[in-house]
Amino acid sequence: MSHTAEIIAVGTELLLGNIVNTNARDISQALSAVGVNVFWHTVVGDNPRRLKDALDVARKRADIIITTGGLGPTYDDLTKQTICEAFGKPLVLHQDILDDIRGYFERNVHMKMPSNNVQQAELPEGCTVFDNPVGTAPGCAFEAGGIHVLMLPGPPFEMLTMLKGHVVPYLRGLSSEVIVSHDIMTFGLGESPMEELMREKMSHMENPSLATYAKPSEVRLRATAKAASAEEAEAMLAPVVKDVTNFLGDYVYGVDVSSLEEVCFHLLKEKGLTFATAESCTGGRVAERITALPGASAVYRGGVVSYWTSVKADVLGVPADTLDAHGAVSEETARAMAEGARRITGADIAMSVTGVAGPDPDERGVPVGIVYIGLATPDGTFCRPLDLGKRRRDRIQDLSSNHAFDVLRRYLTGLPIKLS
Amino acid sequence: MSHTAEIIAVGTELLLGNIVNTNARDISQALSAVGVNVFWHTVVGDNPRRLKDALDVARKRADIIITTGGLGPTYDDLTKQTICEAFGKPLVLHQDILDDIRGYFERNVHMKMPSNNVQQAELPEGCTVFDNPVGTAPGCAFEAGGIHVLMLPGPPFEMLTMLKGHVVPYLRGLSSEVIVSHDIMTFGLGESPMEELMREKMSHMENPSLATYAKPSEVRLRATAKAASAEEAEAMLAPVVKDVTNFLGDYVYGVDVSSLEEVCFHLLKEKGLTFATAESCTGGRVAERITALPGASAVYRGGVVSYWTSVKADVLGVPADTLDAHGAVSEETARAMAEGARRITGADIAMSVTGVAGPDPDERGVPVGIVYIGLATPDGTFCRPLDLGKRRRDRIQDLSSNHAFDVLRRYLTGLPIKLS
Repeated sequence: MSHTAEIIAVGTELLLGNIVNTNARDISQALSAVGVNVFWHTVVGDNPRRLKDALDVARKRADIIITTGGLGPTYDDLTKQTICEAFGKPLVLHQDILDDIRGYFERNVHMKMPSNNVQQAELPEGCTVFDNPVGTAPGCAFEAGGIHVLMLPGPPFEMLTMLKGHVVPYLRGLSSEVIVSHDIMTFGLGESPMEELMREKMSHMENPSLATYAKPSEVRLRATAKAASAEEAEAMLAPVVKDVTNFLGDYVYGVDVSSLEEVCFHLLKEKGLTFATAESCTGGRVAERITALPGASAVYRGGVVSYWTSVKADVLGVPADTLDAHGAVSEETARAMAEGARRITGADIAMSVTGVAGPDPDERGVPVGIVYIGLATPDGTFCRPLDLGKRRRDRIQDLSSNHAFDVLRRYLTGLPIKLS
Repeated sequence: MSHTAEIIAVGTELLLGNIVNTNARDISQALSAVGVNVFWHTVVGDNPRRLKDALDVARKRADIIITTGGLGPTYDDLTKQTICEAFGKPLVLHQDILDDIRGYFERNVHMKMPSNNVQQAELPEGCTVFDNPVGTAPGCAFEAGGIHVLMLPGPPFEMLTMLKGHVVPYLRGLSSEVIVSHDIMTFGLGESPMEELMREKMSHMENPSLATYAKPSEVRLRATAKAASAEEAEAMLAPVVKDVTNFLGDYVYGVDVSSLEEVCFHLLKEKGLTFATAESCTGGRVAERITALPGASAVYRGGVVSYWTSVKADVLGVPADTLDAHGAVSEETARAMAEGARRITGADIAMSVTGVAGPDPDERGVPVGIVYIGLATPDGTFCRPLDLGKRRRDRIQDLSSNHAFDVLRRYLTGLPIKLS
């Protein structure tokens, strides 16, 4: 039987917009991976009457209710009391938990436990306790009238630790079914053309299923299978993943990888190559994305943000003739920038980006959205010209840095640099 | 009369945990600023029956319902149809909106509008239209049986643009009270020390009120006044803003400004100065933040991401002696990097960042979190040494780039570079 979950976050700070509900996202991801359908997220304030109302609504439509927040020691932390009243469970003091909390204070905060932390050691009678190795509030779960109620702390790091350590195993125990997913990552096709292309294939599929998720200029296709065992699910998925990756060809940049830069990082590392960057309109985004990866220095030497034309000339050595004849935003300058970055850093490969991010055209009248990606390599220099249209500045900057990594990925895997 | 709002986000991708519901946070902040109480957030999937159920629950407990998402052109975008059925409103085609969408495609995407975008021009009869200057799906609002229903697009930038341009004025029109806020932006004090420092002041204040909002290493203090007119509210706020900025002194980097880099940008522009960057552990983040601002080229010439030591030497000209004697992560190298960036770009001022972002110590054993910010100026070269502790890589990178802009801001306003 398939379970239906509702996630209820308790916290006035969410309703005031002071924080964003990352807990709901993280729990949803974990539940989706174990085959529990999440059909509802709810947020209520630190208000027992409205929490009671939310529980009344939730118990009619879900058989798993997961709450976050309201387990702290202060007077407005009322989740446990309210849930226990709603489900007719008495609260019981757990001496061992009280001792743990006392110990936590002495070890980590070097102070005596304040008296109001005692209430954190009170838990619903007969519940499963989820201990909290990174904070003071333990979580718990109980079943009442066919409904599983799980209470987790609000601070994201405590919640995440408990989610992995306790919630996922608890929920796996409720189901005999296993769910496995693989993500086919694509670049170069928008969401609408991708849906158009995949519609017929996707409409016939139920288990495994295939779904698309878009970010700007990237589409992730997730293939998901439910089966009695992981082996069976993998066997169901293998032909689907193969079929889709064959069908989409060059658009696919990887399966179960997180980003284009990660793919480039691993390809460079495998081949023992280093690279460098020369960025104009992206202003450091390409460098920032690669240096976000731990260990980036194995492949990335550095680069230049040549925002002014004088920096293109003086630091990268783009010839004055090239800049005069073709302008800073041109295929010729993109090529010379990449070659310059390669020369001054000694890297095997260098990528360049020059273009107009807007909001205004450049001083020669080149319109917003015109971008050139250059790539200088031991095999020669390449260029991908782009017309990204009159989009927002940050979109053009993000998209251009995506294209830069796509150019690098295509070079490293022997594919043509230009998009067809 | 005070209004009660529920925000309903429509989107299966939220329930799968693919994205986080930032829209609910942003709408909550905006509503709180105009005095509307948000008591509920709900998330449902792209499922008309469950959206219908959510609307039935919401209309019993709120008199303002704001939905996000489900206004797109694809078959699973069902928000408008479902809401119109629930509230008995027919959908009507708006020819002028259809023409706008067609124009948007031709201007921005250089393609003919796909036929399924026609449904985006259908809106509830008699509604107030919220046009969408940054996307294709317009939003709208109508009132039925004392309940105001507002529909906004899901993509955050489109939603935010509409929130400011249409939703806030619409909601202001529902109330006779005016709410005005000012944000006092601070850098250098964490949230707990700030709360400690401000506790006494804040506890006495009701109208105007004062609240703190934290991001890593920054705290925003929001002063808010409710009054019958904007003039009256401003008059109530002026002494509070003055008192708090005086009290916090150097920690305050601006009032009603959005970021440290924006403050630096305006200061440089006013003074007619240009700057450059030399980044190691921040890997381009400082450059990226300044080039995110439209018109950055007025003040930013460019920079170098000197990730490898050889790039520090070869491109920035950091002397081999300095690197040998003190290492890449040292005050001496930070100073030489800044001076090198200033020299090769010809900028008036150059900032440098060198440090250990982790996860591992550098090859000389300098621990994670040690960072040096250099600043080369016409008045000499300065340095701020930092020990940020063993945090996550991305936190150290973000914090270091914050400190870089804080150093620049302090130099430009004649304050000491080092934190006390």
